[in-house]
Amino acid sequence: MPDFSVTPYDVEGQIDYDAIVQRFGIKPLDDELEQRIKKIAGESHFMIRRRIYFAQRDMNWLLDQYEKGNKFYLYTGIAPSGRMTMAHLIPFLLTKWLQDKFDAEVYIYIPDEEKFLAKRDPTLTLDKVHSLAYEDALDIVSLGYNPKKTKIFLSTEYAKTLYKQAVRVAKHITFSMVKDAFGFTNETNVGTLFYTSLQSVPAFLRSVEENKNVPCLIPLGVDQDVHFRIARDVMVKLGYYKPSIIHAKFLPGLDGRPKMSSSDPNNTIYLNDSPEIVKNKINKAITGQQSTAELQKKLGGNPDRCAVCQYYRYIFEPDDEKLAKIFEGERKGTLLAGEHKRDLAERINAFLKEHNKRKEELRQHLDDFMVRD
Amino acid sequence: MPDFSVTPYDVEGQIDYDAIVQRFGIKPLDDELEQRIKKIAGESHFMIRRRIYFAQRDMNWLLDQYEKGNKFYLYTGIAPSGRMTMAHLIPFLLTKWLQDKFDAEVYIYIPDEEKFLAKRDPTLTLDKVHSLAYEDALDIVSLGYNPKKTKIFLSTEYAKTLYKQAVRVAKHITFSMVKDAFGFTNETNVGTLFYTSLQSVPAFLRSVEENKNVPCLIPLGVDQDVHFRIARDVMVKLGYYKPSIIHAKFLPGLDGRPKMSSSDPNNTIYLNDSPEIVKNKINKAITGQQSTAELQKKLGGNPDRCAVCQYYRYIFEPDDEKLAKIFEGERKGTLLAGEHKRDLAERINAFLKEHNKRKEELRQHLDDFMVRD
Repeated sequence: MPDFSVTPYDVEGQIDYDAIVQRFGIKPLDDELEQRIKKIAGESHFMIRRRIYFAQRDMNWLLDQYEKGNKFYLYTGIAPSGRMTMAHLIPFLLTKWLQDKFDAEVYIYIPDEEKFLAKRDPTLTLDKVHSLAYEDALDIVSLGYNPKKTKIFLSTEYAKTLYKQAVRVAKHITFSMVKDAFGFTNETNVGTLFYTSLQSVPAFLRSVEENKNVPCLIPLGVDQDVHFRIARDVMVKLGYYKPSIIHAKFLPGLDGRPKMSSSDPNNTIYLNDSPEIVKNKINKAITGQQSTAELQKKLGGNPDRCAVCQYYRYIFEPDDEKLAKIFEGERKGTLLAGEHKRDLAERINAFLKEHNKRKEELRQHLDDFMVRD
Repeated sequence: MPDFSVTPYDVEGQIDYDAIVQRFGIKPLDDELEQRIKKIAGESHFMIRRRIYFAQRDMNWLLDQYEKGNKFYLYTGIAPSGRMTMAHLIPFLLTKWLQDKFDAEVYIYIPDEEKFLAKRDPTLTLDKVHSLAYEDALDIVSLGYNPKKTKIFLSTEYAKTLYKQAVRVAKHITFSMVKDAFGFTNETNVGTLFYTSLQSVPAFLRSVEENKNVPCLIPLGVDQDVHFRIARDVMVKLGYYKPSIIHAKFLPGLDGRPKMSSSDPNNTIYLNDSPEIVKNKINKAITGQQSTAELQKKLGGNPDRCAVCQYYRYIFEPDDEKLAKIFEGERKGTLLAGEHKRDLAERINAFLKEHNKRKEELRQHLDDFMVRD
């Protein structure tokens, strides 16, 4: 197998999604499942069609339950360490779509201690992470979540609820287990060792609240699968359903690396980047094109290596026909780098303008979404 | 050094308190300190005079602060796994006395998940431990704590407050540190690994609440020192005072073993034992006496080996002169086993009768003491 590492704390090496499916023991999201989701939802989602969501656990079981009338709820989240990036939109956009199509409750967990515990950065204080968490919450609700069906909670504000359930999980998780699964060492701090117990709680919290088993679906970046690989086995011991999971690929970096890094500000777009910064960053993005316009027209480019094409594919061009045209232009050399980049920057800036407008409108209404002890 | 193990999770071997002082790096509670406490408090406490409290950390610093007008608060607690025993009275009786003499606030932490996490007993569910915690709280307040100056809290009810502070501690505690200090292994669960971070929180919680450094004194059984050996160093890193500690010996078992075990029901007295059970248990207790009344009268006995004498010394005879008479009777053979035991059983039953009466009176008022998120 190729040499790579994919855990919530470290993504390194040449990422090979087929190898991930093998190594994690997950299932590819196949055509049959895609069609089944489309049939029930009434339409398909481009991230599923394009296999941005490429793998899954127990999705067919979940849909069986749904068709029997046993509705599921959704659980996703984000661990703040800086401002939200385009990559973070991937789980939240799909989760919002699933909420609408399946009329599902959504639990969004924003652990405002995880990165404080995991990172050495002394500027990342608990207060800092806490205020980042609130900005994240506001970015998330600005994507259109239904306040009547969405609960957002933070570790420091919901610990009374979460900790009690987390100890039930923690009792079944040993140091050996987390050491192997997450790549921890003897020098890892005990807060980080314990944290996975908390992250698993929202995957059965609704069952606790309703006092009956409720199926749960977790859309997540594939690096987060580790938490639930452990938690799913524990949840069975506690008498709950295993949560179903749908796994996303990583949004490539603007430099063409397979995963953008949120700590390298030039390699990604933040949701609060100004139009000027967006333009500059996209201008410097790598494309799959030849070194000169001359050569590009003659030889054409490679959309798979083009960060601009990938931004369209992952997020900014939901229409398959239009995306095909962009890819074709890149491939045939009819789409030149300058135009290509200008178009994307405009598309991103239009999205951000609208997004930030909604955000300011919602700032006073964020409490409609927050749950606290 | 003698071969023994003293941690919160395991007390084994021949306990040698001088060796504990050496090994733990704590200071003996010496005559000078005893006199200093007596001078400030206006009277001395028999558990200090008799060195039931035999060791300490930073007590002179604490009293320096006190004399400068910088008052301390008290922190102690109990981790429920069954009903409270006589041994548990030792920290709570001294803490109550210190509250009265030093006009100190008291924080009592009852972690209602610790034993659930640490023990394999499947009957010890979270709900079970939670209800034991409430019985413990009621036993504690029945010792006469001042409701205006006493706060009692449980992990599951105060986790919002405790967890946020615990992660600040946890960031500085690695697996290596707790492995060595507590004797944990790679198979220890992550809840137990994390727990020490929570136990340390009440030692600086008042400083957080008051937003200024407040000295803290922790009366505890010496097995609990391990938690604070780690936490004291972390607290300095967080900018707080190190808590001062005063360490108690273990109440001997009724069979003469140096530590009664709360899981061996015949080796200790529970606070809810009936008068008949108390009588029977004390009747079976080991004494330092000879095998027959004849021999006892002739040769005399050894009060140091006599569980009955030790119960008087640790808890039930605060008057030194009266205690000296009991010891002398045992030593000289004038006090026979039957009488000796009958007297103690009567003394214990009188205490329990009064205690349980107060307990029922306070049952409706327990909420005056409880703090919750």
